[in-house]
Amino acid sequence: MRVYACIDDIEKVARSRLDANAENYYSSGAVDETTLALNRSDYGRILLRPRVLRNVTSVTTSTTILGRQVASPIAIAPAAMQGLAHSDGELGTAKAAKNTASLMILSTYSNTSLEDVISATPDLPQASESPFWLQLYVHQDRCISEGLLKRAEKAGYQALVLTVDAPVLGRRLKDLRNKFSMPPHLKLANFDASQGVMTASERNSTGATSGAKADASLTWKDIDWLRSVTSMKIVLKGIMTHEDALLACQWKVDAIIVSNHGGRQLDTCPSTISILPEITAAVKSYSHAHPTLPVPEVYMDGGIRRGTDVVKALALGARAVFIGRPMLWGLVVGGHEGVEQVLQILNDELRNAMALVGVQSVDEIGEGCIIRKSLL
Amino acid sequence: MRVYACIDDIEKVARSRLDANAENYYSSGAVDETTLALNRSDYGRILLRPRVLRNVTSVTTSTTILGRQVASPIAIAPAAMQGLAHSDGELGTAKAAKNTASLMILSTYSNTSLEDVISATPDLPQASESPFWLQLYVHQDRCISEGLLKRAEKAGYQALVLTVDAPVLGRRLKDLRNKFSMPPHLKLANFDASQGVMTASERNSTGATSGAKADASLTWKDIDWLRSVTSMKIVLKGIMTHEDALLACQWKVDAIIVSNHGGRQLDTCPSTISILPEITAAVKSYSHAHPTLPVPEVYMDGGIRRGTDVVKALALGARAVFIGRPMLWGLVVGGHEGVEQVLQILNDELRNAMALVGVQSVDEIGEGCIIRKSLL
Amino acid sequence: MRVYACIDDIEKVARSRLDANAENYYSSGAVDETTLALNRSDYGRILLRPRVLRNVTSVTTSTTILGRQVASPIAIAPAAMQGLAHSDGELGTAKAAKNTASLMILSTYSNTSLEDVISATPDLPQASESPFWLQLYVHQDRCISEGLLKRAEKAGYQALVLTVDAPVLGRRLKDLRNKFSMPPHLKLANFDASQGVMTASERNSTGATSGAKADASLTWKDIDWLRSVTSMKIVLKGIMTHEDALLACQWKVDAIIVSNHGGRQLDTCPSTISILPEITAAVKSYSHAHPTLPVPEVYMDGGIRRGTDVVKALALGARAVFIGRPMLWGLVVGGHEGVEQVLQILNDELRNAMALVGVQSVDEIGEGCIIRKSLL
Amino acid sequence: MRVYACIDDIEKVARSRLDANAENYYSSGAVDETTLALNRSDYGRILLRPRVLRNVTSVTTSTTILGRQVASPIAIAPAAMQGLAHSDGELGTAKAAKNTASLMILSTYSNTSLEDVISATPDLPQASESPFWLQLYVHQDRCISEGLLKRAEKAGYQALVLTVDAPVLGRRLKDLRNKFSMPPHLKLANFDASQGVMTASERNSTGATSGAKADASLTWKDIDWLRSVTSMKIVLKGIMTHEDALLACQWKVDAIIVSNHGGRQLDTCPSTISILPEITAAVKSYSHAHPTLPVPEVYMDGGIRRGTDVVKALALGARAVFIGRPMLWGLVVGGHEGVEQVLQILNDELRNAMALVGVQSVDEIGEGCIIRKSLL
Ligand SMILES: Cc1cc2nc3c(=O)[nH]c(=O)nc-3n(C[C@H](O)[C@H](O)[C@H](O)COP(=O)(O)O)c2cc1C
Ligand SMILES: Cc1cc2nc3c(=O)[nH]c(=O)nc-3n(C[C@H](O)[C@H](O)[C@H](O)COP(=O)(O)O)c2cc1C
Ligand SMILES: Cc1cc2nc3c(=O)[nH]c(=O)nc-3n(C[C@H](O)[C@H](O)[C@H](O)COP(=O)(O)O)c2cc1C
Ligand SMILES: Cc1cc2nc3c(=O)[nH]c(=O)nc-3n(C[C@H](O)[C@H](O)[C@H](O)COP(=O)(O)O)c2cc1C
Repeated sequence: MRVYACIDDIEKVARSRLDANAENYYSSGAVDETTLALNRSDYGRILLRPRVLRNVTSVTTSTTILGRQVASPIAIAPAAMQGLAHSDGELGTAKAAKNTASLMILSTYSNTSLEDVISATPDLPQASESPFWLQLYVHQDRCISEGLLKRAEKAGYQALVLTVDAPVLGRRLKDLRNKFSMPPHLKLANFDASQGVMTASERNSTGATSGAKADASLTWKDIDWLRSVTSMKIVLKGIMTHEDALLACQWKVDAIIVSNHGGRQLDTCPSTISILPEITAAVKSYSHAHPTLPVPEVYMDGGIRRGTDVVKALALGARAVFIGRPMLWGLVVGGHEGVEQVLQILNDELRNAMALVGVQSVDEIGEGCIIRKSLL
Repeated sequence: MRVYACIDDIEKVARSRLDANAENYYSSGAVDETTLALNRSDYGRILLRPRVLRNVTSVTTSTTILGRQVASPIAIAPAAMQGLAHSDGELGTAKAAKNTASLMILSTYSNTSLEDVISATPDLPQASESPFWLQLYVHQDRCISEGLLKRAEKAGYQALVLTVDAPVLGRRLKDLRNKFSMPPHLKLANFDASQGVMTASERNSTGATSGAKADASLTWKDIDWLRSVTSMKIVLKGIMTHEDALLACQWKVDAIIVSNHGGRQLDTCPSTISILPEITAAVKSYSHAHPTLPVPEVYMDGGIRRGTDVVKALALGARAVFIGRPMLWGLVVGGHEGVEQVLQILNDELRNAMALVGVQSVDEIGEGCIIRKSLL
Repeated sequence: MRVYACIDDIEKVARSRLDANAENYYSSGAVDETTLALNRSDYGRILLRPRVLRNVTSVTTSTTILGRQVASPIAIAPAAMQGLAHSDGELGTAKAAKNTASLMILSTYSNTSLEDVISATPDLPQASESPFWLQLYVHQDRCISEGLLKRAEKAGYQALVLTVDAPVLGRRLKDLRNKFSMPPHLKLANFDASQGVMTASERNSTGATSGAKADASLTWKDIDWLRSVTSMKIVLKGIMTHEDALLACQWKVDAIIVSNHGGRQLDTCPSTISILPEITAAVKSYSHAHPTLPVPEVYMDGGIRRGTDVVKALALGARAVFIGRPMLWGLVVGGHEGVEQVLQILNDELRNAMALVGVQSVDEIGEGCIIRKSLL
Repeated sequence: MRVYACIDDIEKVARSRLDANAENYYSSGAVDETTLALNRSDYGRILLRPRVLRNVTSVTTSTTILGRQVASPIAIAPAAMQGLAHSDGELGTAKAAKNTASLMILSTYSNTSLEDVISATPDLPQASESPFWLQLYVHQDRCISEGLLKRAEKAGYQALVLTVDAPVLGRRLKDLRNKFSMPPHLKLANFDASQGVMTASERNSTGATSGAKADASLTWKDIDWLRSVTSMKIVLKGIMTHEDALLACQWKVDAIIVSNHGGRQLDTCPSTISILPEITAAVKSYSHAHPTLPVPEVYMDGGIRRGTDVVKALALGARAVFIGRPMLWGLVVGGHEGVEQVLQILNDELRNAMALVGVQSVDEIGEGCIIRKSLL
């Protein structure tokens, strides 16, 4: 496939190839897309400090996430309905994850069943032990969710990622105007028709503000319920305040993802990179107060488009970062190869930035690598 | 009628339908429209903090305003000459207020008489007890104003809203250039011709900087005069400084509206949302110093276009917010149904934002829900 | 003549009527025109605080400048070669000054002699005692300057305004590109050909960076020389630092004008409105330290285009403000009537802003009328 | 040749004359060109303070750099492959340096050999003793670098400038898209083909992220190696942190250049002008702690396009500034005469700015000449 210079070049081509329905669904944020824009622009308020005359002959991005070795801290975020991007859908993404030894989170609302995703491409010569996690929206009928979790655990998913920022659906104006709906040739492959599950898009197309079947009554104590029905690790996706980060510590989840759902939920909430410091500080303070207790790992997503963005997120305390739309654009332009190229560009840029910042491993990336712009 | 995705979509259609004379009169602000723009853009400097894993199954916007139950803290601001927007004029707006159980303030300069407005549509099956208030500009001939107040009280208005930010008329350049004047088929229905009342527009068209008959000598002590001629509650509209907020406390008015007249009076005065904190702080400090005295309720208007704007205003201490132009645009595109759709969109967006901020009632909205951007 | 809504409307028409040579000469600032832009935009960082329920039936702008009564604190700055604007040149400007009872400073480089300017239109019925001052660039041949001062004093000028910000000429790129020069039908009417005086424009056209005959060696002690040759009051134009403001106090000049020459000299120096506070503070501190000594009055110019700008300058301690380009644009569109309309618009806007800020006289305008934006 | 009004005018013409390959190579910065833009825009955050009534009849820019007298603190940065700009290539630049008595740094990757550059134009009547320095990228095969240094010393170069900000090559997207490579008629004249040296562009065209032969293992201790093979003075180019400035003091280098390689290496690193204060402060603190030790001189480059930029850099503690692209644009439009005009414009602007700031020599330029904008 064609070689691109950067993620933006891939995005441009991808968006021009999609029909308006899909392009709008993938690209849009809530309401005025203020948060969507901040997610990107706030990286510009953090500057990198180049250190010189350090040996940077062997820069490596490898790290561990929840104890598993991965080739890079750059991982794949859950995104619904990847069948809109490419006929391979989630199979393409999974193949790319395996080929690059990257972590992938599968969305509840995938067009490929969770079993097919994990068992796909087993004969890839270069297939690694890349970790797979399943993202979960809890159904009002808890039995449906329990069934899903049992299947996931059996299929080999190592963690469940509970998305907590969508008790009701964000107002995405383009989808409201388009009356967006999933094309008939696709299905929500993790459910059968009888379960009455509606995708975000289906709910959108009804103009409903809350998910018809999503459980808006979910609270912290339901983490105990989750633990009672699965032994997978528990990751909370969508933490945006220090208060909730502390609650996550107290409820002993394994990890949290600082995320605002790619700016698709509450418009005018802060960018994730601007909030990351308050989250990592809260977790650190909890850890100091409870030195014997394990604390959640902290990841983030939102607006990651450059290797330098990753350095900044890591410098502010994230252990890993997830990419949503870039992965989708890669899928559009080249199926699994497109996703691989996206990951390769980002990892090349990351290594380049690490060398110029003067570090050889991700552990060396810290606050000393950055200046926050208001300090200038 | 057609279903719109947001207020801006309605505004766009409405403005394209009006002739330049009316479009300019409704849309314009004073001089360079700096304050008009700030009224809108300053909401962007306040960010919302999403709290998660809270039960948000039953979000409600209902509240009380001056002791009366209303369906929502979003109410209708007084705007002159609604006959320019739609043949129904103020009758349409009043019908929408009743149908949505919202508070409405009628302008002194309405094209429908105050009696007709309140008695309109009495047979609406869903007509609620929505409160009606009358906005007042004091005439140099006080007898004329006294007459108006007596009629309003008799007709059932529960409060008089004294507009204090217009002792002289703001310089709206487009109106000066257009020599804007009210079309001959409309009348100022609360006055008869002999009373020599000139509308803002009429004064504008003479190029006069002060209202020919508006009383620029009005001072705080005239509140005692108002109390002597009416038993309606007294609301001051146009408070923009902590000093005047304290004076309002001392003069024991029932409520104040933080307002800069939608940016139509003094250009380069601050946005209302940026000043709101200093006002609520002043009222709170007065209340602490005089624990046994009642203090005015605080409302605001200016630039409210999104449900998230409402959350921010409430978080900074407003009890209610008023919409001016959005109501006018609704009236243009669909008469009373248009105004209802405007209110419905804003209330839907408000409920959506409340759920994502993690609150179920307006009382729970507080400073903890927001970040002011300079803190980031 | 046609009635305009604001200064910008007049500017637009005026600039379209001039040839590029003159338009560029009048409009341009030094190099990148950074300071020119700041002179205007920094007013936007100061906001006005509307006070309400104050009697504003009789707002007046009248004040005194160096002890003389004037109708308004808005006065006319010296600008060279007004013959480029209109065939009446400086005679038109002088007539407007008289008709509006405004102070006018005549430029050294006028196309009308200083005697003609002051004696012009003596039979105007409404001619007031408006003060006239003469602006001075000191010639390397001091005799030439002495001659000019004697003539000025005799003609009735009450003050000499020494421009101190132009020991060398600012680099105005458009003039350099145009090789701007004064058209042959105009003359520098205060000099005869033998005196070898070159205008800014003539120097420009030679590409010289310093005025061929302007005296770049002028220092503070030359103020004593000036005092020895004239009894007119002494005003320094172009003070931009607190250090020089203090020196002006020590050298006992009668007044200073905070000015950066309309952004035409040192590009990227601060706007005048942003520096005004440090100047008035310095003069105040000198006054407190020397309570028995007189201190200079403080004026300013640069970017005044709105009545609200004047309120802000007065709130920050200026006693008067001068307008340069607005006067030139008025002259272009309507000769003396154009300048009068410019002054009338600004004074109307000033009165309007004063009423809405809640003051009736310029003495009441103080720091309490404004908010500096970083405080918001 | 044609006379230009400013550097930007020369840049515009030059860029329009080059083919895309060369234009992109010269103009581009890394990735999003954020740092490239900051290098320029951050000068706008520093304002100049005009002092008045000072004798400025004889302003001079002359100074010393590493003990050698130069006509101006404005010097020529090393830039690879000047043969792309003009057939004279580095010979033109060297001639301009001599004609203007300016310091020039020759790039390792010149299209003219270092011997030819320094011996060129020996018969210029006005040829002065302008200093020449050689910039160095250390080769993995140290013998190649040692050879180069011996030749440079013999040819008369007075300092070697070790570029430390490019252990790997920055990602310049346009070059990646163009697959930029050096045209076949040019050669890297300091090397013979057998030495396997690849230019930045050649490495770029392979898409490699690190220089094939550049030594990424270079560390501070290699400064001792450099000293062991040459007696030229040692200058480090690319210092951007106070930590590395202190290390440079400890390793006793003769000078450092605050540089981010014209925004071509690590994107989103700070502008040089914003970092300069932390560097000069670090060197000063080292000097105070070690009063008997010599400390490095501090220079800077990046975004210098105006005389006022030079004043700002000197005010913040730089002893000299280097120009990269402006020199290249000059070379394109007029060979050596173009470079001379570039230097002349900048020096004219510098003298102009000095006079208006009120200083006659570069030593008088200090912190008192500027305001940093956040202070306003
Ligand atoms: C089209 C689309 C669909 C998404 N679907 C889901 C989903 O099903 N579940 C979920 O937790 N997050 C979902 N997300 C949010 C992503 O997981 C992630 O938080 C976000 O995309 C990160 O921001 P980025 O796109 O700027 O990288 C979706 C995002 C997009 C753009
Ligand atoms: C066309 C128009 C007419 C108005 N007429 C009045 C009026 O008669 N009396 C009054 O107190 N305020 C009047 N206002 C101000 C509004 O009550 C309100 O303060 C303002 O519109 C709120 O800002 P918004 O338009 O951004 O919502 C008017 C506003 C507009 C736009
Ligand atoms: C075309 C032009 C000519 C000027 N000539 C003079 C002059 O001869 N002497 C002087 O002291 N200032 C001169 N000035 C500066 C003005 O007196 C004044 O400082 C400046 O115009 C104020 O800024 P403004 O144009 O934004 O109002 C001139 C300004 C302009 C625009
Ligand atoms: C086309 C080009 C080639 C360059 N080549 C080199 C080089 O070979 N060695 C080096 O140390 N710096 C090199 N630089 C960086 C310059 O020395 C200098 O740091 C930079 O251009 C200064 O910024 P300015 O272009 O904004 O003046 C190069 C810069 C450009 C634009």
